[in-house]
Amino acid sequence: MSRARTLAGPALHRARRYARGDLGADLLAAVIVTIMLIPQSLAYAMLAGLPPQVGLYASILPLLAYALLGTSRTLAVGPVAIVSLMTAAAIGQIGVAGGPQHLAAAAMLALMSGAMLLAMGALRLGFIANFLSHPVISGFITAAGLLIAASQIRHLLGTSGGGTTLPQIAAALLREAGAVNPVTLATGAAVLSFLIWSRRGLPAVLARAGLPRRASAIAAKAAPIAAVAATIALAEALDFAARGVALVGAIPQGLPPLALPLLPLELIAALALPAFLISLIGFVESVSVAQTLAARRRQRIEPNRELIGLGAANLAAGLSSGYPVTGGLARSAVNFDAGAQTQAAGGFTAAGIALAALFLTPYLGALPQATLAAIIIVAVLSLVDLPAIARVFAYSRSDFAAMAATMVLTLLAGVEWGLIAGVTLSLLLYLYRTSKPHIAVVGQVPQTEHYRNIDRHKVLTSPNVLSIRIDESLYFANSRYLEDRIAALVAERPALRHVVLMCSAVNFIDASALESLEEINRRLGEAAIRLHLSEVKGPVMDRLARTDFLTHLSGEVFLSQHEACRHCGAAI
Amino acid sequence: MSRARTLAGPALHRARRYARGDLGADLLAAVIVTIMLIPQSLAYAMLAGLPPQVGLYASILPLLAYALLGTSRTLAVGPVAIVSLMTAAAIGQIGVAGGPQHLAAAAMLALMSGAMLLAMGALRLGFIANFLSHPVISGFITAAGLLIAASQIRHLLGTSGGGTTLPQIAAALLREAGAVNPVTLATGAAVLSFLIWSRRGLPAVLARAGLPRRASAIAAKAAPIAAVAATIALAEALDFAARGVALVGAIPQGLPPLALPLLPLELIAALALPAFLISLIGFVESVSVAQTLAARRRQRIEPNRELIGLGAANLAAGLSSGYPVTGGLARSAVNFDAGAQTQAAGGFTAAGIALAALFLTPYLGALPQATLAAIIIVAVLSLVDLPAIARVFAYSRSDFAAMAATMVLTLLAGVEWGLIAGVTLSLLLYLYRTSKPHIAVVGQVPQTEHYRNIDRHKVLTSPNVLSIRIDESLYFANSRYLEDRIAALVAERPALRHVVLMCSAVNFIDASALESLEEINRRLGEAAIRLHLSEVKGPVMDRLARTDFLTHLSGEVFLSQHEACRHCGAAI
Repeated sequence: MSRARTLAGPALHRARRYARGDLGADLLAAVIVTIMLIPQSLAYAMLAGLPPQVGLYASILPLLAYALLGTSRTLAVGPVAIVSLMTAAAIGQIGVAGGPQHLAAAAMLALMSGAMLLAMGALRLGFIANFLSHPVISGFITAAGLLIAASQIRHLLGTSGGGTTLPQIAAALLREAGAVNPVTLATGAAVLSFLIWSRRGLPAVLARAGLPRRASAIAAKAAPIAAVAATIALAEALDFAARGVALVGAIPQGLPPLALPLLPLELIAALALPAFLISLIGFVESVSVAQTLAARRRQRIEPNRELIGLGAANLAAGLSSGYPVTGGLARSAVNFDAGAQTQAAGGFTAAGIALAALFLTPYLGALPQATLAAIIIVAVLSLVDLPAIARVFAYSRSDFAAMAATMVLTLLAGVEWGLIAGVTLSLLLYLYRTSKPHIAVVGQVPQTEHYRNIDRHKVLTSPNVLSIRIDESLYFANSRYLEDRIAALVAERPALRHVVLMCSAVNFIDASALESLEEINRRLGEAAIRLHLSEVKGPVMDRLARTDFLTHLSGEVFLSQHEACRHCGAAI
Repeated sequence: MSRARTLAGPALHRARRYARGDLGADLLAAVIVTIMLIPQSLAYAMLAGLPPQVGLYASILPLLAYALLGTSRTLAVGPVAIVSLMTAAAIGQIGVAGGPQHLAAAAMLALMSGAMLLAMGALRLGFIANFLSHPVISGFITAAGLLIAASQIRHLLGTSGGGTTLPQIAAALLREAGAVNPVTLATGAAVLSFLIWSRRGLPAVLARAGLPRRASAIAAKAAPIAAVAATIALAEALDFAARGVALVGAIPQGLPPLALPLLPLELIAALALPAFLISLIGFVESVSVAQTLAARRRQRIEPNRELIGLGAANLAAGLSSGYPVTGGLARSAVNFDAGAQTQAAGGFTAAGIALAALFLTPYLGALPQATLAAIIIVAVLSLVDLPAIARVFAYSRSDFAAMAATMVLTLLAGVEWGLIAGVTLSLLLYLYRTSKPHIAVVGQVPQTEHYRNIDRHKVLTSPNVLSIRIDESLYFANSRYLEDRIAALVAERPALRHVVLMCSAVNFIDASALESLEEINRRLGEAAIRLHLSEVKGPVMDRLARTDFLTHLSGEVFLSQHEACRHCGAAI
């Protein structure tokens, strides 16, 4: 399918080709996702420290915007756990919780994140997300999952006082340990047990009751809304409000108010870094979900177009009193499994949530917060991936160091510090590794034209010729190290007449390294030793040919190491 | 010469071996360097915005400290132009110029820089300096030289108002253009002309007068002190003070007062970044001078010991009312040429400056500031290296971008922003380059076992086998790019049965890239294509063997690309 290049192009094109069969499938998927999204959007708004209606608002226009501009057919956009936690950390200190400035800050965060995503998409900067290494992302998600679960314990206990780091949360729990509300605890524990059971036990029960296997699995996703309905009924019947159980409280009825969030300039500046980190994490989470689902049906998504779709969704969230959104894994998987065929499913879901905002809100006020906390805890525990930590530890200590720093700082100092530390450390460790490259002295494998490390293979060498293979590109951070190593290797070999640098692993030589090579050539020349190069890659050779290095070079450049050694009399 | 491992070891050891012949040579060199250093220390203190005696103080105890702990025999430590400019930028806003808090800030900067250098030496972190690429250093030095020269123009004109960036300096000059003092201008222009002439003309005149060539060259280094003496005499004779010529003014007589600088904590925190940048630049400047001079006499210096020596010198500067110091190029070259044999020459120079502080200071008050400005301008113009800019531009656009950013920001926003931008940009450009690695499809060079890029060489290929050479280590920033490229290459080749990844240039595979390889292997497997690896380096293979990747791998690992192709039936 060829795709028009204008922004509205894909949506128009799709609308014209939209088939009758797809309509039914998309409608069914939308109903199921709506049922799943209503409790989630209330729960994640609570996690973000925002009133419940903000979660509903973030699940209407953003979904429409993504349906128009996104490239994934099955990605379900909306509030997600990790971005909600990051929102809580970013705006927690701004204004009174739930007050106008606090709400404006949440919407502004979405607006800024949307603008950043759109800018990254327009400038085709999607590759920036590649600088988050897998261990850093995986460590961050695990730590954030643990942090979110810990932050919800107080809602299960009915105590007050929160926090955005593990020490803050633990201190608040200890301080308030005497104030546990038994009715809240009982409700929370019951919902938690039901939801955990519903993940495995409920589909089995439904299947035994005669429902087809796939339908049972999907119907089990309605467990949270069942828990919501049941606990609302219980709260009304037993007058939970009088028993000190924290309820969601009155929710304004109606569609999201459209407004440009207004904040003083210095607050906007303070939100820039959190907005950038939210954009990055939201994009990485969303793209990996979308790619996984697209690959299952042999479809493709385009990361730079995804930035546009996600940016538009966040812009819509910012302008309709919402907060930052992205594509969620669990919800998208349900959408996919329920048979969604096109982006229209997202549009229908938006309509479903709009109906809920118009007609269901009066009934939601009596919902116990403990129910939402249990929904959050069950949702985020699937994010915690402890075996991944063991795998990374076994494979690479430096990857593990970056992962551990991310996790420890996320838990102890908060999500922003954790991410920044992880990214910085993984980049620094990479630079450190390339600054001390592996340099092998090589010799000829007998009866072949191959040259291998003398420490690992039985090879032939000559006292007149030193063949060195440099296992790294040469650039500023390692050029001095190369000078030192060659000086040391040469000092050990008094009979030396030729040094051959085997450049098969040298992918570029920057200006600093070129100066170092000139210096090495000059110093070897003073000691009557000739410097040769072998197996220089095409692009590197092109670049060297633009300088006068090759005319100064005391030796020659050979196509292969074998030719070089034959020339120097070290091989036949 | 074996060296004791304690800090005082080298000095004691050297003292015991100190030869009579060295004493004479070191004394002569010390006299010449002292004559050169007196005007320089006054001038650089003025450049740093400090009273002249601070320059003398920074040239006494720091020299002794370096003589005891440094490893270069000929490095001459003391105030230098670039570090003085950086000091001016760092402390310009603290306290009243020349007041107690301003002086304490200068000493504190030296103290902090000394502590940082000592810590880097103790932790063997000298390699940190390698992250300053040559183009960034060279661009920074050129821009700083221009900035220093521009900052001194007002002293030549006799106008007031300064600045630490080119726009500030230019604005001040324009604003004060009407206030030029003709006597100052005449003095400055005369000294400037004399000093420029003295660099080439004076040695020739002295040689013609019968002085040996080398002695003439060294004697010409006394030109600045001759200019100082002459303009002091002129200022006294013609009563320059009454004619509105800015003079150095009264200088306190005596040795440097020892004191621990005291500052409020928030000012100390604000000095941390400048102190770090001064340490880095001072170390790089000093080490490259010391290495150049050591290599000429086949001696060696040890970078991590240099950190200790330089750290001790700055600590001494901080405790004796001075400001940051480092090894200077011009001064060290004079010390070397004058025949200095050991670190004792530095100790004797310290004694010479101490005598000057005790007995010469009453005569220096009448020195016109224009003389010092002319000395500074002549000294820094040799730092400006415009051909280096052209060389870097011709060789590498990305190195040039880092160099240009360093220069532009140094001139327009100040030294700190220039350095930070240069370092950051050179690191980001390196990461960007490695994030889109060169990936070549290779084929067999006929009648050989060599495999080369099909776009650059006439080679043999088979429709069943795709051989890909990856010219970069595989890590988080490029692993997704690899997935995309392989998917695209495979999609073009319907008859494909085997993909061989030629890993001769892959120096490591991190945990993110390992996951990508597993994903590539899985996807190719679904399309009934086997994935093979060839020419995997020893350390990379060791690491892969620690995981279960090799058991999942649908194909095999071959020692050479030729073996792999023979196995797949693509070569004989």
